[in-house]
Amino acid sequence: MAAAAYKLILLRHGESEWNAKNLFTGWVDVNLNDKGEKEAVRGGELLKDAGLLPDVLHTSLLKRAIRTSQLALEAADRHWIPVRRSWRLNERHYGALQGKDKAQTLAEFGEEQFMLWRRSYDVPPPPLAADAEFSQADDARYATIPPELRPDTECLKDVVARMLPYWYDGIVPDLLAGNTVLVAAHGNSLRALVKHLDQISDEAIATLNIPTGIPLVYDLTPDFRPVTPGGTYLDPEAAAAAIEAVKNQGKK
Amino acid sequence: MAAAAYKLILLRHGESEWNAKNLFTGWVDVNLNDKGEKEAVRGGELLKDAGLLPDVLHTSLLKRAIRTSQLALEAADRHWIPVRRSWRLNERHYGALQGKDKAQTLAEFGEEQFMLWRRSYDVPPPPLAADAEFSQADDARYATIPPELRPDTECLKDVVARMLPYWYDGIVPDLLAGNTVLVAAHGNSLRALVKHLDQISDEAIATLNIPTGIPLVYDLTPDFRPVTPGGTYLDPEAAAAAIEAVKNQGKK
Repeated sequence: MAAAAYKLILLRHGESEWNAKNLFTGWVDVNLNDKGEKEAVRGGELLKDAGLLPDVLHTSLLKRAIRTSQLALEAADRHWIPVRRSWRLNERHYGALQGKDKAQTLAEFGEEQFMLWRRSYDVPPPPLAADAEFSQADDARYATIPPELRPDTECLKDVVARMLPYWYDGIVPDLLAGNTVLVAAHGNSLRALVKHLDQISDEAIATLNIPTGIPLVYDLTPDFRPVTPGGTYLDPEAAAAAIEAVKNQGKK
Repeated sequence: MAAAAYKLILLRHGESEWNAKNLFTGWVDVNLNDKGEKEAVRGGELLKDAGLLPDVLHTSLLKRAIRTSQLALEAADRHWIPVRRSWRLNERHYGALQGKDKAQTLAEFGEEQFMLWRRSYDVPPPPLAADAEFSQADDARYATIPPELRPDTECLKDVVARMLPYWYDGIVPDLLAGNTVLVAAHGNSLRALVKHLDQISDEAIATLNIPTGIPLVYDLTPDFRPVTPGGTYLDPEAAAAAIEAVKNQGKK
């Protein structure tokens, strides 16, 4: 077994107002609901109980990840650590599906097209028009992203491509400096990172789900490979149950 | 009137659990109470209503300032801006008085000594022993401060001396870059900054109070002097009433 040199903790945000309403969210900046807040606090308690104390936090620019990090770090008494944020950790941009009801979309486009948009590696939904209701074209927080980088839809492959520069330039330097790093982000930006770390194929990543609110710990070797493939969930039973539930949900 | 080149917003945290209990707090990391949370949200709403949108946030390492900033920025829809923190923005270290009841301390030491500790520019309270209940000697968040810099008590003069390097090295560069800067901090670290900005004498600073939860806006000239001496409160009537209330409290 290779020696552990670096410690990375991934935390997917808890349930949001739109998860509960079954709407595609993407870059729409919805808040956590009560359940999501409780998940975040519980995530922080798991960190504290395990003695895993983050030295630095990385988040996306979206409220549900930011608040998850704040609630979790407060529960772990680490609210005072340095914070860095990047749009590159944002959820996948869901294009024209943003704000749409999932069941309605399934009915409208059929299961094949629906699953292609949700789970294929390289088929993005149609782009979201700049003047659409749920567009972020005029959102001040993205004003410094050059137009050619700024997504109006994304597949998971696109997320990997825009997330990886932040991994190398933003997160790895903090690990190299000896920090325990917490990344509080989203289902798809974290799947993109896990795909990279565990060298998961374009096909196999389709069935990988990361449960919400349960810290996923990666001990990394000096060349930034997982000591334990897939990392270790701090509450493995809850993680397994959540993964199983998502699988069954996929089957309807 | 000199031209405004830079925009700085100061925000003092709202009421904490210990303010309400009338205890000396200093570096003890107590949370906001309900009233303090409401003050923070209201502070953010004042920013939003005034169209004053911070581009970057600076806070202390203490929860009451951190949470004030989070609640205010969320209310102003600016939760996603970059965050920087420093112990140099912390409240004054209150030495051996930390955790003590203010009324009891007044009774024990007499009004002259009490007011000297509270309001003199250069008389610190007795130092706090490293093994005392409310010491921060073993607090991980201060582990990187060299021992000779790490306070065990402070007078306002000490706060000015340790705060100013952060003003010059941490905050001014963000202003020079054209950012609207929000500093969410404490009564005494903000008094120290205002003393510097407005060139207030060691004597006159004794009677200057900054109300909680009301953004204080400074337009600064190219040489970082206030266009309007004393800055401008976003809710001037509430600020005046709060300042008056503190004065009367001082008289008992």
